[in-house]
Amino acid sequence: MSETYFTDYEDLEIHELMLKDRPRQKAYFDAITNNKHLFKDKIVIDVGAGTGILSALCAQAGARLVYAVEASNTAKIALDVIEENGLTSIVKVIHSRIEDFVLPASSEKADIIVSEWMGFYLLHESMLNSVLFARDNFLKEDGIMFPSECSIFVAPCSVPSLFDYWQLVDGVKMERFGEKLRLQKSKKPEIMQLNQHDLLHEGVILHWMSLLDINAEELNEIRFKEVLATQTAGDHQGFCIWFEVRFPDDSVLSTSPLAPETHWKQCVILLPQNACEKLEEKSPVAFQISMKRSANDDRKYDLEVELLDPNTEEHPVPCPCHMTKCILTEAHLKMMDTS
Amino acid sequence: MSETYFTDYEDLEIHELMLKDRPRQKAYFDAITNNKHLFKDKIVIDVGAGTGILSALCAQAGARLVYAVEASNTAKIALDVIEENGLTSIVKVIHSRIEDFVLPASSEKADIIVSEWMGFYLLHESMLNSVLFARDNFLKEDGIMFPSECSIFVAPCSVPSLFDYWQLVDGVKMERFGEKLRLQKSKKPEIMQLNQHDLLHEGVILHWMSLLDINAEELNEIRFKEVLATQTAGDHQGFCIWFEVRFPDDSVLSTSPLAPETHWKQCVILLPQNACEKLEEKSPVAFQISMKRSANDDRKYDLEVELLDPNTEEHPVPCPCHMTKCILTEAHLKMMDTS
Repeated sequence: MSETYFTDYEDLEIHELMLKDRPRQKAYFDAITNNKHLFKDKIVIDVGAGTGILSALCAQAGARLVYAVEASNTAKIALDVIEENGLTSIVKVIHSRIEDFVLPASSEKADIIVSEWMGFYLLHESMLNSVLFARDNFLKEDGIMFPSECSIFVAPCSVPSLFDYWQLVDGVKMERFGEKLRLQKSKKPEIMQLNQHDLLHEGVILHWMSLLDINAEELNEIRFKEVLATQTAGDHQGFCIWFEVRFPDDSVLSTSPLAPETHWKQCVILLPQNACEKLEEKSPVAFQISMKRSANDDRKYDLEVELLDPNTEEHPVPCPCHMTKCILTEAHLKMMDTS
Repeated sequence: MSETYFTDYEDLEIHELMLKDRPRQKAYFDAITNNKHLFKDKIVIDVGAGTGILSALCAQAGARLVYAVEASNTAKIALDVIEENGLTSIVKVIHSRIEDFVLPASSEKADIIVSEWMGFYLLHESMLNSVLFARDNFLKEDGIMFPSECSIFVAPCSVPSLFDYWQLVDGVKMERFGEKLRLQKSKKPEIMQLNQHDLLHEGVILHWMSLLDINAEELNEIRFKEVLATQTAGDHQGFCIWFEVRFPDDSVLSTSPLAPETHWKQCVILLPQNACEKLEEKSPVAFQISMKRSANDDRKYDLEVELLDPNTEEHPVPCPCHMTKCILTEAHLKMMDTS
């Protein structure tokens, strides 16, 4: 576990960025404030409390006791925030890693675990492990996770700002610069905001998990294989990955290109030049993707996408793609359906 | 002269940022393309050519010969760009610091020096020195500088995103966090985009220079003292500094909060909490500002602003501020004018 991970969060500008991320703030504010019945008189643990804002919201929503557990020195700021809001009798700021936290012997387990643990493409930073540790050790049998579910999505996409833009910049051809730029960026996933029109498909769920059930080992490696059919024509230049988290009241914080921009943006994996292709609507795109915890730094993941051959891969049945076998299958199914 | 300065520019993402800065690109494109008569058959030196885009524009505008002088390895990319646009017979990419550049013995001096040398608050990076070196050594007597003039502006301002925002974040008081954040940011000038409504004054020129006349020593230290009267009421929380450069056709690239956002944004110097003040319209603001080349790194500047006492400082005559002496002076002047 790297020491720098926690010292990074002592930089106030990271918290400034998160606290000014309006969709993030609004999602948590609404999920907590619109569900006061869940918080009334309850015990809450806020894992990785940061500046303590979620703990304060839980207290304001009626919680009886909130443990705001924060490993970095930001805990001092959380204490400021809790004092400033007159909540010290409810919120206990604990300057500790959650793994070193011990519930007072007199205390019951928590009714609710609240956390904003999501990193780029959901899993970057791997703070989720700490949340699951808290769940396994400090949550009651019938306790609630806030958020409670999350999904990672993937869709084939165009990336005009890294491809088309360089064809002609104010009348000057810059294709080779564009190529070199993409080469530089292809060494790591690119965090960038796509436009909804850049998606060639609305996206499929690459991975879904319930925070009540998942265990940490399942997160060591995620593999996903899919054949999908594009829903709009366009240049296939990469894969766009995003996530959403869902709260117990079914409200959602989404980082999709269709949702208002958040500081997470999206994660784009660029295709190499020779794999880029102009696709018609209903073109089959076959691929597999793996997200594997990095051997060097267990807070990071290695992302790999492999394009597969749609001619040899098995398609779903029915498949909306324009390949003859899928059109015939669909016709056959329809016939059977009406016979 | 630091080695890292040039290696930084080998990071293609810096060039990506600049090439996607539409106001920057448009200003140079228009100034060059709308003035082909200036470039027709002329010799041009592009100082710090980067990816070579300005050199390409000059060649396309009719220049006979362009020296694209670039010290960093980006010179290789410039060569790509020049080749890709079929301009190798006109644009000579020179991988060299301008200080080490030697005009071929057979060559005349240049008719035009083009450069995009501006840094944050204009002077950061101090690439201007290299442009002036080029002017002194390689420009004809009656040569043209592109851009030809520049001005630095300053105005008192509000900074709501660093002050007001923290009063209540989703119902949680975060004033102390705001204070700590401002303290952290006050250690260096903050590069940020202000809204035009944040300005308490349209701005005064802190420094003006003609690139034909200025000499490098004048840039070692700039001092400016002013008493101005606010033009709108508001919270005085800092000083906003921006610049504009002017081309020979009088077209302007402005980085003002009133102009479209550029990658330079503005430079904001925050006032300490106890110096912040709610001001009425026509309140006098007296201050002095110094921009002094840093002793440790001559590409950087130390910026200092000192608030002065408007009661003891001499005001301009006439002065639109609401102090009695200025109202009386103005009335007196009007009387004399009509008598």
